[in-house]
Amino acid sequence: MSVNKVLINGEWCEATHQQTFSPFSPTTGEKLEQEYPISDWIDCDKALTAATLAYQKLQVTSRESIAQFLELYADKIAVHSDELVELAHQETGLAKSPRLADVEIPRTVSQIKLAAHAAREASWTMPTIDTGNNIRSMLQSIGPVVVFGPNNFPFAFGSASGSDFASAIAAGNPVIAKAHPSHPGTTKLFAELAQLAVVESGLPKSTVQLVYAMSNESGLRLVSDPRTAATGFTGSRAAGLALKAAAEQAGKLIYLELSSVNPVFVLQGALNQRKEQVADEFAGSCTMAAGQLCTKPGLVVVPDSTEGDEFIKLAVEKFEAGVVGTLLSENAAEHIKQTADKICAAGGNLLVGNTPVDEARFCYNNTLLTIDGEQFIKDSETFQSEMFGNASLIIRSNSTEQSLKIIQCLEGNLTGCFYSDTEGADDQEYTILEPALRHKVGRIINDKMPTGVAVSAAMNHGGPFPASGHPGFTAVGMPAAIKRFAALKCYDGVRANRLPELLTDENQNQSIWRLIDGRWSQDNI
Amino acid sequence: MSVNKVLINGEWCEATHQQTFSPFSPTTGEKLEQEYPISDWIDCDKALTAATLAYQKLQVTSRESIAQFLELYADKIAVHSDELVELAHQETGLAKSPRLADVEIPRTVSQIKLAAHAAREASWTMPTIDTGNNIRSMLQSIGPVVVFGPNNFPFAFGSASGSDFASAIAAGNPVIAKAHPSHPGTTKLFAELAQLAVVESGLPKSTVQLVYAMSNESGLRLVSDPRTAATGFTGSRAAGLALKAAAEQAGKLIYLELSSVNPVFVLQGALNQRKEQVADEFAGSCTMAAGQLCTKPGLVVVPDSTEGDEFIKLAVEKFEAGVVGTLLSENAAEHIKQTADKICAAGGNLLVGNTPVDEARFCYNNTLLTIDGEQFIKDSETFQSEMFGNASLIIRSNSTEQSLKIIQCLEGNLTGCFYSDTEGADDQEYTILEPALRHKVGRIINDKMPTGVAVSAAMNHGGPFPASGHPGFTAVGMPAAIKRFAALKCYDGVRANRLPELLTDENQNQSIWRLIDGRWSQDNI
Repeated sequence: MSVNKVLINGEWCEATHQQTFSPFSPTTGEKLEQEYPISDWIDCDKALTAATLAYQKLQVTSRESIAQFLELYADKIAVHSDELVELAHQETGLAKSPRLADVEIPRTVSQIKLAAHAAREASWTMPTIDTGNNIRSMLQSIGPVVVFGPNNFPFAFGSASGSDFASAIAAGNPVIAKAHPSHPGTTKLFAELAQLAVVESGLPKSTVQLVYAMSNESGLRLVSDPRTAATGFTGSRAAGLALKAAAEQAGKLIYLELSSVNPVFVLQGALNQRKEQVADEFAGSCTMAAGQLCTKPGLVVVPDSTEGDEFIKLAVEKFEAGVVGTLLSENAAEHIKQTADKICAAGGNLLVGNTPVDEARFCYNNTLLTIDGEQFIKDSETFQSEMFGNASLIIRSNSTEQSLKIIQCLEGNLTGCFYSDTEGADDQEYTILEPALRHKVGRIINDKMPTGVAVSAAMNHGGPFPASGHPGFTAVGMPAAIKRFAALKCYDGVRANRLPELLTDENQNQSIWRLIDGRWSQDNI
Repeated sequence: MSVNKVLINGEWCEATHQQTFSPFSPTTGEKLEQEYPISDWIDCDKALTAATLAYQKLQVTSRESIAQFLELYADKIAVHSDELVELAHQETGLAKSPRLADVEIPRTVSQIKLAAHAAREASWTMPTIDTGNNIRSMLQSIGPVVVFGPNNFPFAFGSASGSDFASAIAAGNPVIAKAHPSHPGTTKLFAELAQLAVVESGLPKSTVQLVYAMSNESGLRLVSDPRTAATGFTGSRAAGLALKAAAEQAGKLIYLELSSVNPVFVLQGALNQRKEQVADEFAGSCTMAAGQLCTKPGLVVVPDSTEGDEFIKLAVEKFEAGVVGTLLSENAAEHIKQTADKICAAGGNLLVGNTPVDEARFCYNNTLLTIDGEQFIKDSETFQSEMFGNASLIIRSNSTEQSLKIIQCLEGNLTGCFYSDTEGADDQEYTILEPALRHKVGRIINDKMPTGVAVSAAMNHGGPFPASGHPGFTAVGMPAAIKRFAALKCYDGVRANRLPELLTDENQNQSIWRLIDGRWSQDNI
């Protein structure tokens, strides 16, 4: 069995490496037969040098070529979707259908096409023109971007196919993709398709590069290297914090998505009206894809009331009866167990689960715990520990005041949900709780679970730390996500013939919106 | 002599302190008679608690009230400008006229009024609405902001009066101002006027708070405290980097302006046409306000040619003949001397200056050094050390290729300038050099020195690290600067009656621009 090749400087080549790894099949628990190199620093170094050259060329490459690359690539993904689905299923255990084939492939293709549209149309650059002073500015590309993708979305967040990748490229930057070790083969297949599209569209040959793994030390060096402009990271908090520290010490940008428990407040009126429906949505949202979603509802606050108790009973039944999904890795079950044990040791009560399943595949029984509000507030750090998987904690709150205190104890989160009476009976409580929760989350949701993340221009998949590294940006949604990988560039008194096309008096790209003297316009000056 | 009071929780009160300090008069070299406390942590702690409460109230305060506060405050500054100018002149040695009275006061008043306009008009929040998915998002306030102002702009960048202050307030955040120790009295007077405006406009009483100084340890704790949302810092690189490390380790935002040498490329054609004029502009820009400007031209690259030599000769004459400005602090002269000595020790040649002036005021002779391009490239770290004051380094470049290499050695800078032949004779060289310099600076300037920084919507006073901490944001220019102190907040499926006013179907604030389904519009949905 030969070791898989890395993609550096436009060529699939032998990695410089001492060690290799093989991914596991979550559905069988066995090692897969493919072998991938753990690259030495020299591979990263070569990739950075190649990316630097690619960036110089991309600076003078047309937006049209970048858009064409993205479109060609999206088309190739669609054509090869069966192969991608098969491979990703082997490596991640995620269901082929509907999840991989019918949800994640279309989402990934559409996301890349939206990035292509944004690259061509270019309104994301927000050209701003002050005619009186002849000062003009816009967002422009930033330089080589390193992308570390997570394990849970091999396509839509993949390091060579997902939102960070598409955003960085659409902004005009080359990407060095670092595969997630749980699905290196899937990432390799994406990189192969991307490389074909790079050649066909005439982009610089090192616009997309791929390495599979490296030492922690090399990872820290990669994000802080002078040649790196920015990094996108989605993954574990520990790894993310180490990369963040290294990057920021070197003055480098790093966008992170680290952890989120996505609190859901089920108000009394919602329980009175539709507790069975809410319990259904909760259990579905928490056990779907074995709960391995960034926005899985990991904390649910319910009133300490008869209806609250009934809701909990229903939730327990549904967790018990629900399908036990396959986890992405062997240690995922161990992680849920350790966190659930920690919560129980601190005073939480186990309602169901926290037991292994006697199967070869990676899995753990659907787990639900509970704690009362007072105890949560006393040790909120423990009780808001993320359980990445099919597990959740229900908090019983005895009053609006206690719910407010619970919110005040929360770290930053991606989302915060309210289920409430549809006729307005909970509106007073909502008015009290919403501003506090608003401050802690990137997205406020009404009457639905947080696990749907539309690729919308108005989406915010981000939030206060540790949900993300910078609360002003979203990781999902075109064109907003593109802005992360750009710098503000100003032209002060620059002669007309030297201005970038998008900043000239004539709006050469008729469709673009420009902010001219305080008015958004598609007109010429 | 009693110790000056701090402004905490809406009251001027005795600081909790062990030590005090007194500022110096740069024009006499003597200590001034006022005494200011170095606050213990307890003052910071109280201010943070008060700011947290103020923030909760500001979240439900109208934009109109915030705008009225800013306007009232601006008016009070205008009314008290004589007093402010007198005090700032005593503390900073900056000329009363034109600098303080005729430039910085009007700029400060106008900047705050622009912030008021932006707060009221609110287009800076960039409401984005996806009607199909009923997902809506906008930028909103972020929480308590700490502002550390620099020594060189006591008004326009002052911690209780400048761009960071006005930006943070306009976004709806309370500010804890930390005075610069070189002008605490000026900052106190600002805070007094601001507090009056806070009361008159009915804003929460702790919207503006002031401390003068604290231990380094308390400073690090302040920027990383859970109650702090973000920090704005303009000042020395060493202090800024320490604060950056502390803030970012805690996952806190910090916007910094750390250092910049602002390279100026004088191309051969400009020398052929107008070398005397360029030398004049260079000497003026470098010695104005004793060169203590963030965008002072600290590196000038000239061709190694007869005209280049003549330009250098002219520059030397002008530096020699130029007024020797007053420096802001006693150690400023020492700092110039040490850096100039370091440059000479590394192979640089002293052209003029690097000698003390026999006067009691803080000053140092106008200093000009030179180095050839090859040497610069070999030890660029040393040669691009910032000399904050009336000193600059001229690099002789022997070719376009060498100029390109010089650019590639540069750190991030606020600005980069080109002087070139007005008929286009240098355009080929410009085309080669500009993309490389573009990548290294926030603002590209043609045919003028970088020291003018217009408060324009299209300005970028920022740039790649270490010019700033995040190259996507500007510290000057309304409304762009406001966005730094905001978070992206999304409303997903939120009921119409619960939406913020700016995100409802009806555009209740007719003048605001909203991005509705990809089109910027002032209309209702």
